[in-house]
Amino acid sequence: MHNDPIEHLISLLSRLPGLGRRSARRAVLKMLMDPAGKMLPLADALRAAADSVRPCEVCGNLDAESPCHICSDRHRDRKLVCVVEGVADLWALERAHAHRGTYHVLGGLLSALGGTGPDDLSISPLLRRIEGDGIEEVILALPATVDGATTAHYLTDRLKPTGCVVTRLAQGVPIGGALDVLDDGTLAAAFKARRPL
Amino acid sequence: MHNDPIEHLISLLSRLPGLGRRSARRAVLKMLMDPAGKMLPLADALRAAADSVRPCEVCGNLDAESPCHICSDRHRDRKLVCVVEGVADLWALERAHAHRGTYHVLGGLLSALGGTGPDDLSISPLLRRIEGDGIEEVILALPATVDGATTAHYLTDRLKPTGCVVTRLAQGVPIGGALDVLDDGTLAAAFKARRPL
Repeated sequence: MHNDPIEHLISLLSRLPGLGRRSARRAVLKMLMDPAGKMLPLADALRAAADSVRPCEVCGNLDAESPCHICSDRHRDRKLVCVVEGVADLWALERAHAHRGTYHVLGGLLSALGGTGPDDLSISPLLRRIEGDGIEEVILALPATVDGATTAHYLTDRLKPTGCVVTRLAQGVPIGGALDVLDDGTLAAAFKARRPL
Repeated sequence: MHNDPIEHLISLLSRLPGLGRRSARRAVLKMLMDPAGKMLPLADALRAAADSVRPCEVCGNLDAESPCHICSDRHRDRKLVCVVEGVADLWALERAHAHRGTYHVLGGLLSALGGTGPDDLSISPLLRRIEGDGIEEVILALPATVDGATTAHYLTDRLKPTGCVVTRLAQGVPIGGALDVLDDGTLAAAFKARRPL
């Protein structure tokens, strides 16, 4: 129906998460109104990111430098490592300013169904970091799912011989969350883990 | 928080219609998992579109060729021209396979509030096409808004001396539309324009 370059661009854009065909079309039309101001800068930004961004050799974060800007920040506490499933979770914790230490990206979760075993995750590098860098506390910031709990359990076992403290994020009622819309599992867990005021 | 290339890319992407910051971030993360397979092709497609796509000198459609593939298609009826506000509407009519003739993109609508007058729209080129190409019917596919109606009215006046038939799209109940969720204006218009079965 359309000629090649427009259709091709729409179809590539519509494969991005969050963009359907309809919004990809709108985005392309908007960019075509100002190719020099909107399309070429985006093309350059994509190429620059593709050329420069790679996983941090220390923690697995994605950054233009390796070690990444978090690992090379002298103000971060290297004795405190937060273990996350992926880079998205790392970025979310950074946005929340939740953590003053460094990170370690596992690259996934143990999953019997998904066929992900310990060797598929960045666990040996984590153990090497703990031994080499004198890490004192490992905070497991893993999702509160079956796979997340399995992975946390496995990591706790593997980290026991190192002697460092292993903690996990608190589970309970989300801040600003109304009780009556929460799922039963969260409510029951929050009730059980109630704390004195 | 993040380093330059990632943040820059997210901020450019999040300016596209339909993509907020959150989905731009997800899209960038997904692309960074496979830069060579996802980012570079998109960068190339953007550059190719920016370099090749321009407005058709005849109708104003955006295409890699000028005259565009519709204007140069010998199977389309050149005596039948459909006038649209913009390229988005042209594409929508093409997707619906609604029209077997050619198009003319006005580039906007008359708007007293917006300060858009007849000279800001592609009206003289339309008149030249009608005189030069022996056009027999002009179909006004303009939005059913105040500005759309004003523009249709003005065009009908301007086209009268040419002697060609001027029609507009039917207005009424959308196909598949439930009556009780329709706005009053549409319902009243559809009622008034009822047709015998």
